[in-house]
Amino acid sequence: MPTSATLRALRAFIEARDWDQFHSPENLAKSISIESAELLELYQWTNDPDQQRVEDELADVVTYCIHLANKLGVDLDEILMNKLAQTEQKYPVHLAKGRMTKYTELQQDEEEEE
Amino acid sequence: MPTSATLRALRAFIEARDWDQFHSPENLAKSISIESAELLELYQWTNDPDQQRVEDELADVVTYCIHLANKLGVDLDEILMNKLAQTEQKYPVHLAKGRMTKYTELQQDEEEEE
Amino acid sequence: MPTSATLRALRAFIEARDWDQFHSPENLAKSISIESAELLELYQWTNDPDQQRVEDELADVVTYCIHLANKLGVDLDEILMNKLAQTEQKYPVHLAKGRMTKYTELQQDEEEEE
Amino acid sequence: MPTSATLRALRAFIEARDWDQFHSPENLAKSISIESAELLELYQWTNDPDQQRVEDELADVVTYCIHLANKLGVDLDEILMNKLAQTEQKYPVHLAKGRMTKYTELQQDEEEEE
Repeated sequence: MPTSATLRALRAFIEARDWDQFHSPENLAKSISIESAELLELYQWTNDPDQQRVEDELADVVTYCIHLANKLGVDLDEILMNKLAQTEQKYPVHLAKGRMTKYTELQQDEEEEE
Repeated sequence: MPTSATLRALRAFIEARDWDQFHSPENLAKSISIESAELLELYQWTNDPDQQRVEDELADVVTYCIHLANKLGVDLDEILMNKLAQTEQKYPVHLAKGRMTKYTELQQDEEEEE
Repeated sequence: MPTSATLRALRAFIEARDWDQFHSPENLAKSISIESAELLELYQWTNDPDQQRVEDELADVVTYCIHLANKLGVDLDEILMNKLAQTEQKYPVHLAKGRMTKYTELQQDEEEEE
Repeated sequence: MPTSATLRALRAFIEARDWDQFHSPENLAKSISIESAELLELYQWTNDPDQQRVEDELADVVTYCIHLANKLGVDLDEILMNKLAQTEQKYPVHLAKGRMTKYTELQQDEEEEE
């Protein structure tokens, strides 16, 4: 992920504009944060913002995430699956089912019950 | 994107924990912003943070982006390519090459030159 | 604002640790964003987070805002009042009363009514 | 903090527009995050953005912080001084002087030295 066609298109876009020089990991991390806030802004005063604008802002966030993954030389699918494995351990089904409680508190709850 | 295997794994994770009820688009937009800031935090005082931690935080951002795309019923590759087409128009190569200038200012520069 | 006693205490804290060297405006802007996300995180899955934690995170945001104002050599009260004057013009009471609509749209609404 | 004149002006602005109904603590926390990202955006591709724009965005962040403090019924100066007392303990001068290292790591370093 993304598909190799999308990846090629994104790389060609950057190359044609000679923008790689601006894409330090730190700058990309800033861009991800800034674009995320633009996405959040759509939900600031309504639960039902314009779908097209949401898609555009979500696309911006993911585009910068792909640029950062490229810079770091990592495959997004791979790091996603690695992180998922960790999260599954932190939030075991029998403790986490149906509630959003931070994993540190989930484990405390369990210890107290024992 | 993501691969269908990753997509299935993410969905199974949520389903097993019955967490879909918490994943309103607005909550997911908040989560994307929060995770983005955790990624940015790694670059707050250094340009060279621990690679594993960067991968983990980047994975968190993208995971929530995938959840949001699912909620909205959109394909990430598709909205990415749509947005890229718009961005290519806003930043034509002959104006944008080698500089980071907002597209509104790029076009002003061009008009002034004409 | 802040009171001169608070301002003195914040400055003494930084000076004692020789941290001024890290406080470029850009770094402070990053810190403000990161701390804001920590504040937002408290409201991620609940509307009623722990009051002490909210106060602590809010204090972090404002502390970095004060550091940035110091760096820029501006008085927070003054820039606040300047911005308020602008916002009052963008959101005239007869258009903005009782609704959260972006000022660009407010003015469109008015033109259409005329 | 802020001065009582500024505080009165901010309150009058909100009251005249009947906007208090939109200012839940959660919404204000979102606003703080969104405005912080707009501030950060000014520093995205330059270290030396337009001063007026920085002042305006910084004013936005602090304005929402003041609204939130009002909602919570807390005094900003007081929570700032409380938080500063905590931070002073986490970052003792003899460990923190001249370096930006998270307090958990600072204390580890000290334990290892002993």
